[in-house]
Amino acid sequence: MSAQPRPSAAERTSAIEALRSLLGDRLSTADAVREQHGKDESYHPVAAPDAVAFAQSTEEVAAIVAICARHRVPVIPFGTGTSLEGHVQALAGGVCIDMMAMNRVLEVNTEDLDCRVQAGVTRKQLNEHLRDTGLFFPIDPGADASLGGMSATRASGTNAVRYGTMRENVLGLTVVCADGRVIRTGGRARKSAAGYDLTRLFVGSEGTLGVITEVQLRLYGIPEAMSAAVCSFADLAGAVSTVIATIQLGIPVARIELLDEVMIDALNRHSGLDYPVQPTLFFEFHGSQAGVREQAETVGEIAAEHGGGDFRWATRQEDRNRLWQARHDAYYAALALRPGAKGWATDACVPISRLAECLLETRRDVDASRILAPIVGHVGDGNFHLTIILDPDDPDELARAEGVNERMVIRALEMGGTCTGEHGVGYGKLHLLDREHGEGTAVMRAIKGALDPQGIMNPGKVVRMD
Amino acid sequence: MSAQPRPSAAERTSAIEALRSLLGDRLSTADAVREQHGKDESYHPVAAPDAVAFAQSTEEVAAIVAICARHRVPVIPFGTGTSLEGHVQALAGGVCIDMMAMNRVLEVNTEDLDCRVQAGVTRKQLNEHLRDTGLFFPIDPGADASLGGMSATRASGTNAVRYGTMRENVLGLTVVCADGRVIRTGGRARKSAAGYDLTRLFVGSEGTLGVITEVQLRLYGIPEAMSAAVCSFADLAGAVSTVIATIQLGIPVARIELLDEVMIDALNRHSGLDYPVQPTLFFEFHGSQAGVREQAETVGEIAAEHGGGDFRWATRQEDRNRLWQARHDAYYAALALRPGAKGWATDACVPISRLAECLLETRRDVDASRILAPIVGHVGDGNFHLTIILDPDDPDELARAEGVNERMVIRALEMGGTCTGEHGVGYGKLHLLDREHGEGTAVMRAIKGALDPQGIMNPGKVVRMD
Repeated sequence: MSAQPRPSAAERTSAIEALRSLLGDRLSTADAVREQHGKDESYHPVAAPDAVAFAQSTEEVAAIVAICARHRVPVIPFGTGTSLEGHVQALAGGVCIDMMAMNRVLEVNTEDLDCRVQAGVTRKQLNEHLRDTGLFFPIDPGADASLGGMSATRASGTNAVRYGTMRENVLGLTVVCADGRVIRTGGRARKSAAGYDLTRLFVGSEGTLGVITEVQLRLYGIPEAMSAAVCSFADLAGAVSTVIATIQLGIPVARIELLDEVMIDALNRHSGLDYPVQPTLFFEFHGSQAGVREQAETVGEIAAEHGGGDFRWATRQEDRNRLWQARHDAYYAALALRPGAKGWATDACVPISRLAECLLETRRDVDASRILAPIVGHVGDGNFHLTIILDPDDPDELARAEGVNERMVIRALEMGGTCTGEHGVGYGKLHLLDREHGEGTAVMRAIKGALDPQGIMNPGKVVRMD
Repeated sequence: MSAQPRPSAAERTSAIEALRSLLGDRLSTADAVREQHGKDESYHPVAAPDAVAFAQSTEEVAAIVAICARHRVPVIPFGTGTSLEGHVQALAGGVCIDMMAMNRVLEVNTEDLDCRVQAGVTRKQLNEHLRDTGLFFPIDPGADASLGGMSATRASGTNAVRYGTMRENVLGLTVVCADGRVIRTGGRARKSAAGYDLTRLFVGSEGTLGVITEVQLRLYGIPEAMSAAVCSFADLAGAVSTVIATIQLGIPVARIELLDEVMIDALNRHSGLDYPVQPTLFFEFHGSQAGVREQAETVGEIAAEHGGGDFRWATRQEDRNRLWQARHDAYYAALALRPGAKGWATDACVPISRLAECLLETRRDVDASRILAPIVGHVGDGNFHLTIILDPDDPDELARAEGVNERMVIRALEMGGTCTGEHGVGYGKLHLLDREHGEGTAVMRAIKGALDPQGIMNPGKVVRMD
């Protein structure tokens, strides 16, 4: 399959004219707007689209995509812009569709524990909407991302060890295909063997196969009891061994997060905390009162066997919120270690038996490479992130950081892991996808070619078509 | 996309000659062998392949598929032949690949709770292999099916309410594509955002996109405590309301199975049991000793509120086995109600809030249509089966049965459900897939066309290509 030719200037102009008559002043070609939509939160440079369309409905997205298809102009969906591998950069120009005006919760079925939302609804907005129902949506990638974007990138985060990722929690999607057709995938039944799993195909496809406009999601009853705890360890190996034993015993922890001593130090400074500067686990337990007590006791015993100190508890909602806010602020805490520097959130995931080895080797490589890079991890899943704090304008430092990242990913792959647990491919990990999936990427290319024959859907992401 | 022409007799002969020189006497064209491989456990008629190839390795499957591709001859993978919608019928002739000699457990990673098996390993064989590890594989569709076949049909069964279906429990696959290339999808990491989810695309594709030769599976620690119980209800509505309340409270029941009074009567006769002839729930609880006790108490209270009687407990392993054996024998018990008749296991799945309504309307339709059809259901997922006991040679009775099935599925679809919760599409539900997914089936066809351009992979199943 060959790369599609870029549309001519005339085609772009025709597309923009047609879009303007469809959308009026909800189409913007202002520099500031294009610039803002040409970047995510990663270190990748801005690549602005030719225009930004602010869509209000599935039908409108379908009309926009149909116009773009007619003129062979790229289409890039945009949510909160919080992705981390250059997912929204308009590498070949084109039209960015800003989905954030599609922010209605369409239905909540409390009896069935599911809901349907427009793609621009954020996870916090949904949970706010659910407040009086006794239900919640657990997936929490840190950022208050849109649920369309979270679906498109197969997001997960701290709660995935218990509740799964977007893969497990999206029941169905409304998708605008590359020719403007609208399909609904999946459904409200809890399971189905009815044909190819289009839902799972679009979850994680990063806008390269179609634009997700609505999401049917699984919800959960708010547990009767929730309790969080912090535990410091003498060394990283002890912390990781505690995680492994906890998972192997099948204890249904809701969250089990690792922060290394560098990150704890950063967090203490940034958030005014006083945790011992040691490798640390943050836990959360969900269940009945008795169940939470039982889980906490068992995990406490495991931790003590592996050099863990006493648990510091956070049981009241506000204390738990403070604890997890601190965890979510880790990125900013790390940035504050070196004012003016940029952050590069890397991502790898390995089978849990290899986690200690992978983390320790990575830590050694970071130190040997003279890089500042605290580690956090959703370690119950074997997933961890180096947050590299660097000056991207220093080519030597950037090269050392790139070396650390590349070696970390290859290390993870050699241990049976993946080049990205949750951040996705974007264009930052294109070359690593080939390395991970080999001939499988040819199958991915065949699918891309079949569903987007003109190559207009978020081109240059996920699969190489050139 | 147009239907592919059937290969000529000369092409078939050439393919069979090439296969014979590859496989020797592991290629059979004997009538009895072809006949046996031309049918599953459904009411669909036999459609024998031209030849049966008994494969021993992924490389051999790849060579077989490459030969078939060269001669445009259909390929149909075959496991235990226990599918229920005509999945293995050789509708256009071709070569059946019997996978059952590929029966090795390739690796068990106890620390990571995963394993890799060849496609012909059955679920019971795997659990036997795991006996001393403290781990088990929970998915249990009743039949002792092959894990390749269970992956290909997205099987589930009684434990899915807690452990999910094959969709959630297959971590990765080795697949021989339609041109003989071999790919490995997924991996051993618990989560990944690395590209399109090929694993989930092949799970449930019923051999129409490729041949699954190896499966990486998730395993679970055997719970500390397991307990099963039987509870009879005054009416179906009370039983279903108990299920709904249990699921909504988030109680992690391992199994929650409904049998209507017709099925209980059949089971009493067949298995020498003495349950009250009433709608009945079979429960199983997994967890810690305290957790199981707590779950059972809560569910007991819910049942009592909805007209449920006392729980009859089965806690010892042999008693639990006897109880679930009886449940799995339900199909044969139903058949025994009418000696000489055939069984037709139908399948539908709805959002749980609609389950009572769907079941009661279906029960009324069964009675009005003068059909013998006990009901069982994996009701925690909203999934249920009518087991229609009929004489398929009586056209009037068959027509009435088809009417009941068609109306049941349409009823389920109108309630937001699916035409098949776990049996799959095969060729028995092709027309219903269109009805369920509409334009989405065009996307499925595009994928099929891209991955199997000659249309040789299990043709006539899942998607209509004509």
